[in-house]
Formats: sequence, structure tokens, C-alpha cells
Amino acid sequence: MSGSIFALDWGTSNLRAFRLTSDGVCVAQRTAAKGILAVPPGGFEAALTEIIGDWLTDAPTAPIILSGMVGSRQGWVEVPYAEAPAGIEALLAKATAKTLTDGRTALFLPGVSCLRNGVPDVMRGEETQIIGALALSGLADGPVCAPGTHSKWVQVEGGRIMRFATYMTGELFALLRDQSLLGRGMARDGQGAIETAPVEVARAGFERGVAQAFADPALLRTLFSARTLGLFDRLPAVAIADYLSGLLIGAEVAAALPEGFGTPIPVIASAALADRYAWALALRGYTAHPISGDAAAVAGLAQFAIFHRAQGDAR
Amino acid sequence: MSGSIFALDWGTSNLRAFRLTSDGVCVAQRTAAKGILAVPPGGFEAALTEIIGDWLTDAPTAPIILSGMVGSRQGWVEVPYAEAPAGIEALLAKATAKTLTDGRTALFLPGVSCLRNGVPDVMRGEETQIIGALALSGLADGPVCAPGTHSKWVQVEGGRIMRFATYMTGELFALLRDQSLLGRGMARDGQGAIETAPVEVARAGFERGVAQAFADPALLRTLFSARTLGLFDRLPAVAIADYLSGLLIGAEVAAALPEGFGTPIPVIASAALADRYAWALALRGYTAHPISGDAAAVAGLAQFAIFHRAQGDAR
Repeated sequence: MSGSIFALDWGTSNLRAFRLTSDGVCVAQRTAAKGILAVPPGGFEAALTEIIGDWLTDAPTAPIILSGMVGSRQGWVEVPYAEAPAGIEALLAKATAKTLTDGRTALFLPGVSCLRNGVPDVMRGEETQIIGALALSGLADGPVCAPGTHSKWVQVEGGRIMRFATYMTGELFALLRDQSLLGRGMARDGQGAIETAPVEVARAGFERGVAQAFADPALLRTLFSARTLGLFDRLPAVAIADYLSGLLIGAEVAAALPEGFGTPIPVIASAALADRYAWALALRGYTAHPISGDAAAVAGLAQFAIFHRAQGDAR
Repeated sequence: MSGSIFALDWGTSNLRAFRLTSDGVCVAQRTAAKGILAVPPGGFEAALTEIIGDWLTDAPTAPIILSGMVGSRQGWVEVPYAEAPAGIEALLAKATAKTLTDGRTALFLPGVSCLRNGVPDVMRGEETQIIGALALSGLADGPVCAPGTHSKWVQVEGGRIMRFATYMTGELFALLRDQSLLGRGMARDGQGAIETAPVEVARAGFERGVAQAFADPALLRTLFSARTLGLFDRLPAVAIADYLSGLLIGAEVAAALPEGFGTPIPVIASAALADRYAWALALRGYTAHPISGDAAAVAGLAQFAIFHRAQGDAR
């Protein structure tokens, strides 16, 4: 084996570690619920040893590359944001190297910032997934979606992140489902948990929410329909959560994309969430190209690692 | 005194009782935190006696008129919604009379429902405030706003409620301030409570949020700016809550009203909330005509009582 690279996607809640060959092929992977919020100050190197100590011993000089919130003020090493437009090269130029106790180098990738009509926006970790999604999909231009608690919609041109916007879709969905009046109309099981609808019912409820969001762009106004449709028995209680999800994801997609004509859009998400975005995108005239978050992260980290090594070789 | 009428605005959290002359002039008023959620099943008559028992003894045959959630399924007597368009006459036609233990009549007013593009909307209690606001403002046409947890925007023509929409503005603001990532950037006092900004700072932050909401109609996207403007030191931490309030109220006003030309709009709210709507409406080209919720409710109840008596006299 021609040497190793250790690649880490270290976020707020989780740490994902990948062992790559020097050609960027992933040969092993570990995940731990050891996000930066679970690491005490000064404890990052110890946390790393806890998760991949055997790998590190096994390859004592192999470099480490890290992306995600580990590079934030609350993380291990604060790396300033790279301003968009930014591609692999610009991001690497802003990366911060740190020598660890054992003498090996750790390279912390930056997040990306942009200004949209004078208002800043930021991402940290998603840029690596975006770079990975481009490598996996073969696309170099067009929109890329990374849905989640704070969904990112990123416009890519020539493999570079040109601009992007954050939508608080996932966080708002959880708040409205769990804490608002809207949750009171949702069907519950014996333990009080929200019932999961059969998949066809869930999809129908979701798509109805998407259609409503497309018909009326005022989210503050459409939200209340998740209450009244239930009150008037026009939507089964078991489908209200899916309808609400459709209202929110529909509002996000409508704001992010004009009506489309079949263009495939990389969607970086778990299978269940990617399905929802695929349904919403289909109603908008697009097809989704689902890519798992893990696959996108490792592919992106590999791209950075290989490019970084090539830069070193060239010097 | 030519007889009495007892008028009650009985909502989810509060009960407001007004003693009116038969001409609709309010001579006494009481408020209790005895909303319908605080009344046990079958306990409504006892709750009423607890609050205004002395008034009832004093005028043993005086009628009672009630509006608000007391007429809902969870209330005292369920009164079906009157469908919009509806004015005083149509609402009274749907009112439900009940004879109380002491032989006196209690008249429960209905709420109003409407269909907007096939989606139902409802109000219960606000219709009485709307009728009152029209009486107090002398307006019979145009939009009327009743902001709050669930803001209502009502289109009135010839004194009748033609159609309306509910915006979940107040509930969403509280959730986002108290439970979301956005609250973490807000300035706190020693006890961890959100700091109140000086009024000029609060207004500037609020108006900046309104301007942002007017510039970009996608609320899911603008919300994140309440995070990033703080992160990049472009908005003082003490003004973030006001900015968020501006984003939400701005989105509501933008969705409810086209750009305007000075038209006065009745806004039924407490002074502090009416101020915020007045600022947002001014940026949209309207002036606000603030009316307190109590004043609107009692004026509306008086209208119904007088009209109802006139109908009785005419029979």
C-alpha cells in the first residue's frame, strides 16, 4: 500500500473518520457520536486517538486532513472562511496546517462564506461534500443541494462554489412538529410519539404540502393550513407531519430553483431525506441525483488530499 | 339605567367581561386569567359566577353575549363557524342561544371560516374585534390586521368579513427566539434572559429585518441572516431579537399587502405590538390605526348586542 491518508469529517454532533490510500481510495471507515460539542477544551488530540489510535500507530507519518466544525471557533483550530467564489485550490490556500504531538501534520480545511445582497452566509463542512458530490456525479456546473437542519443550496460553476444560501428548513420542521400548535393535530401512538404514515400516505401528504408551497410562497400563511386541513377532516391526522414537511421543503425548493426541465441535481442526504427532495424536485421539473453524506464527504476529502499532495510534489 | 348587557370575550387563556348599558356603553370591566383551558368540563357557569357573580345578582334578567374560544369544541357551547362573507347579521344568524340555570339567556357568537384556494382558514373571537374595530375607526372597507400568536389579516367590504388569512408569526417568533440556533446569538442578562435593547436600537434592528424580508420573500432563507449578521459583527447582539421580529412581521406584511399609498389600516393589538406593525406598515407605504384588543372586543360585542336587541324588538 502506497501510504495512507486519514480524512476526517468532524462536525457538531458526529465524527466520521476515513482511512484512504494515497490515491484517495477509502479502505476503512469509523463513525463516533463525538462531535466537537462532546469534546472538552484541549481534548481534540485525545479524542482523535480514542477513535483511530490504532490507525495512527499503524501509519506513524501519514497526514491527516480535516473538514467541518472542527475548524470553527468552538473547534480544534479556527480556520477563517474562504470567500466564494472558491474551488479546491482556493480552499486549500486557506487551509491551516498544525503539527501534532507525534510530529505528523494535520491540515484543517476552511469553511466558505459569501455575501448575498450584503448579507453574509456561511458553510463549514458542506463545501467538502459539495466538492465530493461533483467528483462523484461528474458535474461541474449547476445547483447542488445539501439538505438538513440548515439546508445549503450551492451554485457551482467550473467546479467552484460561486454562491450559496442557507435555509433553516430542518430546524424549523422539528420545532413546528414538536413544539407548536401544529403538532397537536398529528396522530400519536400509545406512547405519545408521532405516528409514521404508510409510505404512500406519507408521500401523498408530503406532495400536497409541496404543491401548496408552490401555489403560495408565503410560508407564514401556508403553515396554518397544516392545522385547518386537519380540523376540517381534509387531511388524515397521520399525514399532517408529512404535509408540514412538504410545506417547508416545498418552500425551500421554490425559493432555490425556478421551474426546471429535467436537469439532474445532486442531493447530498440520507436515503429517506433524499427521497423527499426527489419528490419535491420532480414536482418542480427536476430529477434528483442522491448522494449519501458519507460518500460525498469522503470523496471530497480525497479530492483535497490528492490535490494537496500534488501541490507538494510540484514544489 | 335602561338595563344591562353582560359581554364576554372568552378566549383560550383569558376571560374579559364587560358590563354594558343597553345602549352598548361599557360601565365596568373585569379580566381574569381564566381562559377556557383553565375551566374544568362542566365548570363554565361556575367560572362565570366566580368572575361576575355580583353583576349577575344585580341584574337578574340581563342577557349575556359571548365570543371567542368559549364557542369552540373545547369550550362551553360549540357554535359552528359562519362562512365568509359574513357581517353582523350573518354572524348573529349563526349564534347559539343557551338558557342558563338562572333562566337568563346566553348568546354564543360563532367564529368565521373561509376557503382560500381550497384551503380552509378559521378565526374565533377576532371577528368580534374586527366588527368593533370598524365601529371605532369608522371604516367599512379595506384590510384589518389583528396581530398576535396567530395574526389575522381580514379583508372587509361594506362592513362584512369577505376573506382572511392566518399567519403563524407570533408563535414562530417565540419558537425561534427561545428554542432555535438563532437565540444563541442574542445578548443575555445575568439571569440568562434575553436583553431588551434601547428603543432606538430595537427599532433600527426591527426595521432592518423588515427591509430584509421585503427584499427577499423566502423566509426560510432570510432567517439564517439573524445568525450570520451577528457572527460577522454586522448587527449588535442586543438587536438580534428585534431583527428576527422584523424578518417575521416584515414577511407577514409583505405577503398580506401590496405596496401601498398611505391608506390607514386598523391594527388591533397592544401598544408595543401595534408600534412594530406601524413601523413595518410605514415601510410598506401604509399608516397604522392602532386599536387595543380590549377596546375592539367590547365595541364589537356592543355592536352585536345592540343589533340583536333591535332584531328582537322588530319581531
